[in-house]
Amino acid sequence: MYLCFDLGGTNIKAGIIDEVGNIHIKKNIPTKVEGNLEGVLQQFKEIAEMLIQETNINSEQIRGIGLGVPGFVEMEEGFITEAVNLGWHDVPISKKLAEYVHYPSFVINDANAAALGEMWRGAGQNHKDLLCITLGTGIGGGVIVNGRIHNGTGGYAGEIGHIHVKQDGRQCNCGKIGCLETEASANALAYYGEKAAADGESALLASIREKTGSVTSKDVVDAARQGDAASLRILDTAAYYLGRTLANIYMVIAPKRIVIGGGLAAAGDILFDLINKWFNAYSFEHLKGQHIIFPAELGNDAGMIGLAKLVDAGLQTS
Amino acid sequence: MYLCFDLGGTNIKAGIIDEVGNIHIKKNIPTKVEGNLEGVLQQFKEIAEMLIQETNINSEQIRGIGLGVPGFVEMEEGFITEAVNLGWHDVPISKKLAEYVHYPSFVINDANAAALGEMWRGAGQNHKDLLCITLGTGIGGGVIVNGRIHNGTGGYAGEIGHIHVKQDGRQCNCGKIGCLETEASANALAYYGEKAAADGESALLASIREKTGSVTSKDVVDAARQGDAASLRILDTAAYYLGRTLANIYMVIAPKRIVIGGGLAAAGDILFDLINKWFNAYSFEHLKGQHIIFPAELGNDAGMIGLAKLVDAGLQTS
Repeated sequence: MYLCFDLGGTNIKAGIIDEVGNIHIKKNIPTKVEGNLEGVLQQFKEIAEMLIQETNINSEQIRGIGLGVPGFVEMEEGFITEAVNLGWHDVPISKKLAEYVHYPSFVINDANAAALGEMWRGAGQNHKDLLCITLGTGIGGGVIVNGRIHNGTGGYAGEIGHIHVKQDGRQCNCGKIGCLETEASANALAYYGEKAAADGESALLASIREKTGSVTSKDVVDAARQGDAASLRILDTAAYYLGRTLANIYMVIAPKRIVIGGGLAAAGDILFDLINKWFNAYSFEHLKGQHIIFPAELGNDAGMIGLAKLVDAGLQTS
Repeated sequence: MYLCFDLGGTNIKAGIIDEVGNIHIKKNIPTKVEGNLEGVLQQFKEIAEMLIQETNINSEQIRGIGLGVPGFVEMEEGFITEAVNLGWHDVPISKKLAEYVHYPSFVINDANAAALGEMWRGAGQNHKDLLCITLGTGIGGGVIVNGRIHNGTGGYAGEIGHIHVKQDGRQCNCGKIGCLETEASANALAYYGEKAAADGESALLASIREKTGSVTSKDVVDAARQGDAASLRILDTAAYYLGRTLANIYMVIAPKRIVIGGGLAAAGDILFDLINKWFNAYSFEHLKGQHIIFPAELGNDAGMIGLAKLVDAGLQTS
């Protein structure tokens, strides 16, 4: 059994997962960010005790801990270079964690954890070369080569949300302009939806905005489904940036599958059809008949399941 | 000792290389393309006999053959999917080769061979994660992950020349429009140089064209070095597409080094400075102080040396 913590700025997803990927218990607990590092580690300790108690699992059955963090991780050293949302940088997290919870621990970027999960038990099953992307507020990615996460120098591999896609694009949190994330994330859809409502381009979005006070990415997707022209254009533009970027990434790593998850992926066929259209437009001719882009299958559990895989593989090689 | 054949549409570079990468003999021999597959295989046999004879090496000292081909290769199967310039497709090359030369053989794409060479004995020495690109008539690439070539699905990894970079770009041989190769290769420089000469934008290029009948990429680089404004603009535009694309690829695989070789790389600092300028403009802030882009060191021998490494590694694991 493995203890898994998928740490976010808002919530910690915690669970106990076995060596074949079955979740025995899971909890969603608000992150005590104000307590900072020591506070969060203390929280891990308490959650671990709670999970073990509630499942009646013998604590000796727990063989290791998997920790996913929203930031850049040096996996081999168990070191967090930077986790912006948590305000952490240069944290030797494995060493610190050992003071609180006494199991061998393995640390990974959260998008990479989700990628491992999809490879093990989700849409990437039985494939060793994958690109997994998470379309949420931002856009994250995980590159799997030969069955293992390719972490890259300083943990920077898979940062596909910060690929430059638009010359006069929006300012990104990362400091750059016109990143994929500013043009094709849920956040981008909401931004361009708000804009269409304000500019009078979409009466439907304007009425939603009047009722609810804002336009969400889900509003844009729903409006597009109802045939709202401005919303369709917004969705198609996001899909254009995604599809073209995925075609370009394909030229670099030629994964067996590209797996897309995250909140925005819930839009389903209307989004995937558009992404495929643009992916095909910018791909080699011979790829056109092939099915390469797949929706993720594990939803919010992908990260936790991937963490179990990380511990499983880590214990086998250590 | 390893027999290495770096097969091109025009020439075969052939040699005998030892297990530490020293070249004992090398030859450059025109490819008998008109003889097609069987003709080239027969040629390999004759070249092998000639090389062994000329070096007085005992044929039993030869432990294997490395073959680099300009095309898509399924490395594990020793299978060529397609080699456009040779007119070959779906060739079980390792099996065929065994009928002519009786050593275990290993096959690889030529740009990937050069990448292995640079990792082993060149600018990528002591690094396990690399992107190596070849700037020549076209643009090729090799992705090295954890010390091994990442070949990708169908051998399509590292095809960075066909990353889409320009919306209204030129028609590429691959069938797509606005590929990196059509905007930043030696061929692209020559094309835009010819154009500047014809359009009256550069008196210097026009006079070269009058004298020699054409404008080459070397003419454009030389003219840029002399301060010719149009040539500088052409070089800077190519560097913009290269630098931005390399920054984007960095987001995906975060290699330790990016190694650039090929005929156009001989332009040296004037080109590398411009590439670095644009790479930095599209990279994360923290990368700016780092030295990531390096010129290749092995010149035309990179491929052959990489082939020796391929055979060396292949024999060790088989």
